[in-house]
Amino acid sequence: MNNERLRRLQDLLVEARVAGLVVSALPNIRYLTGFTGSNALLLVTREDALFLTDGRYAIQAAREVQGARVSVPGGSLVRALIASINRRRLKSLGFESKRASFELYQALHAGLKACRLRPLAGLPERLRAVKSPEEIATIRRSVHVNSAAFEKSIPEIRNGRTEAELAAIIEYQMHALGGEKPAFETIVASGSRSALPHARPTDKPLQKKQLIIVDQGVILDGYSSDMTRTVAVGALGSRARRVYKAVLEAQLAAISAVRAGVPADKVDRAARSVLDKYGLAEAFVHSTGHGVGLEIHEAPRLGKNDKTLLESGMVITIEPGAYLEDLGGVRIEDMVLVKANGCEVLTPTSKDLRIL
Amino acid sequence: MNNERLRRLQDLLVEARVAGLVVSALPNIRYLTGFTGSNALLLVTREDALFLTDGRYAIQAAREVQGARVSVPGGSLVRALIASINRRRLKSLGFESKRASFELYQALHAGLKACRLRPLAGLPERLRAVKSPEEIATIRRSVHVNSAAFEKSIPEIRNGRTEAELAAIIEYQMHALGGEKPAFETIVASGSRSALPHARPTDKPLQKKQLIIVDQGVILDGYSSDMTRTVAVGALGSRARRVYKAVLEAQLAAISAVRAGVPADKVDRAARSVLDKYGLAEAFVHSTGHGVGLEIHEAPRLGKNDKTLLESGMVITIEPGAYLEDLGGVRIEDMVLVKANGCEVLTPTSKDLRIL
Repeated sequence: MNNERLRRLQDLLVEARVAGLVVSALPNIRYLTGFTGSNALLLVTREDALFLTDGRYAIQAAREVQGARVSVPGGSLVRALIASINRRRLKSLGFESKRASFELYQALHAGLKACRLRPLAGLPERLRAVKSPEEIATIRRSVHVNSAAFEKSIPEIRNGRTEAELAAIIEYQMHALGGEKPAFETIVASGSRSALPHARPTDKPLQKKQLIIVDQGVILDGYSSDMTRTVAVGALGSRARRVYKAVLEAQLAAISAVRAGVPADKVDRAARSVLDKYGLAEAFVHSTGHGVGLEIHEAPRLGKNDKTLLESGMVITIEPGAYLEDLGGVRIEDMVLVKANGCEVLTPTSKDLRIL
Repeated sequence: MNNERLRRLQDLLVEARVAGLVVSALPNIRYLTGFTGSNALLLVTREDALFLTDGRYAIQAAREVQGARVSVPGGSLVRALIASINRRRLKSLGFESKRASFELYQALHAGLKACRLRPLAGLPERLRAVKSPEEIATIRRSVHVNSAAFEKSIPEIRNGRTEAELAAIIEYQMHALGGEKPAFETIVASGSRSALPHARPTDKPLQKKQLIIVDQGVILDGYSSDMTRTVAVGALGSRARRVYKAVLEAQLAAISAVRAGVPADKVDRAARSVLDKYGLAEAFVHSTGHGVGLEIHEAPRLGKNDKTLLESGMVITIEPGAYLEDLGGVRIEDMVLVKANGCEVLTPTSKDLRIL
C-alpha cells in the first residue's frame, strides 16, 4: 500500500490485536485517505483498505483517495461494509467507540458473522496528534493568515462597530487572505458578555473602557488555526488591567512548561498556579489548551487530569483565561509547536494589552 | 413546566413507554431548552427536565435555558447525569441511538442501576420537522438574507473572479446582511467541477461558456436557509441548455407534487421521472430534498424510499440535479413550506437561466 499513514495505522492494529478497524469519523478518513467529502466509511485491515462512499462523491473519491480501494455501492454504505467484512472472514474488528454512533455499532453487531467487535477509541487520533513537517508547514500558513486577518480587522473597532460587524470583517479578511473558511464561529464578546467564554457576537456596539475578547481561527488546506486576544477601546480600570496581567503571566508560565516528555496536566498546572496567586483560580473555568490540526479540537487535551506526555511535533494551544461576571473576561491564546527542549510559539501576534 | 416543546416531548415519552430520554444531540437540546452552547446533556422525564453543562457555560445557561433545572457539576457531565438518574429510580430510559456515541451508551449501560436502556431515534427530530409560526417567520428571514446575498454577489462573476473569490463575496454579503454565519461551506463549482455535487471552491477563474453551480445557505437566529442556482458566463451550448431545461422541469414537477399527506418518495419520483424522460435518470445521483431548520439537513428526507408523510408546517428543499462528467452539472434548489393543499415556495430568486 502506497500510503504511509495507513501503514502506520496497520502497525497499531497489530499492537491492539485486531484484524481490522472500521473508521467512521470523517476527519480520520480524510487524514488516512485524502478524501474531503462528507459521507464515507473506511475499513482498514492488516493487509489492505476499502473506502466506501455514495454516488454524489464517485468522481471526487476517484480523484482524491490514496491507498484504499474505492467502492460506490448503490444502497447503504454500512450494509456494503458488513458484506465486505463477512467475505474477508475477519475474526476481530475494532470500531471508533468515541465517535461512532450507537446505530453504527448496532448494525455491525447485528450483521457481522463470527467476528468479535472491539471498542477502540483514538487510534487514528494518536497518529494525527504528532504532525509531519508538511502538516506543520500548512499549519504555519494557517496561523499566519489568521493573524493577518486580525491585524487588518482590529483597527475597525475604533469606528463604532458592533460585535457582529467586527466578526464579519475578520471572516471576510480570512477569505480575502486565502483561507477556506473560519475554523469556528468567530467570537467577539465585549463588556459583560466577555465573561461568557463562548459568547456569540451580537449587535452590541463596541464601547469604551470595556474588555473585548476576540477568538478566531481559519482553515487553510484543511488545517485549522486558533488565536485569542483581549483588547480594549480607551483606558481600562485598574482591576481589568490586573486581570490582564495575571492571565498573560499565566499564559507565559504555561508556555515555559511545554516541552517533549512533559505530561499535559503539568502545563495546565503552570497556568493555574499563577492565576491562583492572583486569587483568580475560580475564574479560570476551562482547560489550558488542546491539539489543533484537521480539527479545531483534537488530541492532546491540556486539562487538570490529562497525563498524556507531550511529544515533539504536537501542535497545541495555550489559552488560559479569567472570567468575572461583573467585570468581563480576559483570554490570551497562542498556538505552539512542541519540541525536544521546549516549544516554538507559532502565533506572531503581539500580546501587549492593546488600547485602541 | 413552562415550556411547550418539552411538554410535547413528554407526550412522546408516554407513547414510547419510557420514563425518560437522555438528549445528547446539541440541536435537539437547543430546540428543547434554548441553550446555544457547545457542551450539554439533557434528561427529560415524564415529570421534569434536568440540563447539565460545564463551567464555561454556567452564566450563559442560566440566561438561556427554559423549562429545565440547570446543573453545572464540577466533573464529568455523564457521571453527574447517571447519579441523577439513579437517584430518581427511573425504570426505563431512552437514548438517541442515531446520534449518541457508543461511548455515551456504554457509560449509561455501565452506570445505571435497575434501569432498562432503550434505543430511541428521532423523537425530538419528529417535533422539529413541523415548524411553529415563529420558526417559519425566522426561516423566511433567513431565506431572504440568503437570496439577497446571492443577488448582490452574482454580478461579480463578470469581473474575472475565481470560484473561491465568489464564495468569499457571497459569505461576506451574508454577514453584512445580518446572517450569523454560512449554513455550510458555500459551493461555487464551474466547468467540469460542477459535475461534483459537493465540490469545494478552488482558485479556478470563472470562465465563459461553462456551467457554474452556486449552492449557499446562511444561518439567522439559529435557522438555516439553502438555495442552489446554476448560472453561466456567456451563451451555453445546446446540450447544457437542454440539461438546464430538464432539471428545471423536474424541479417544478416535484414542487407540484408537494402537499400535506403525500409520502416523501412521491415527490422524489416526480423529479426523477422527468429526468428519466430526458435520459438523465443516471445523472441524478442524490435525493430530491431534505428538511431544513436548526440543522441544514433534518427530517424529513425526500429520497427514493422515504415513506414519511409530509405535514403542514414542514419546511423542505426541492433540489434535483444532473451531473455529467464531461459537461458539468446543473442543480436548482428552492425551500418550500408544506401546506394542506400544496406548498409555498419560500425562495424568491428567479430560476430563469442567467447568462452573465
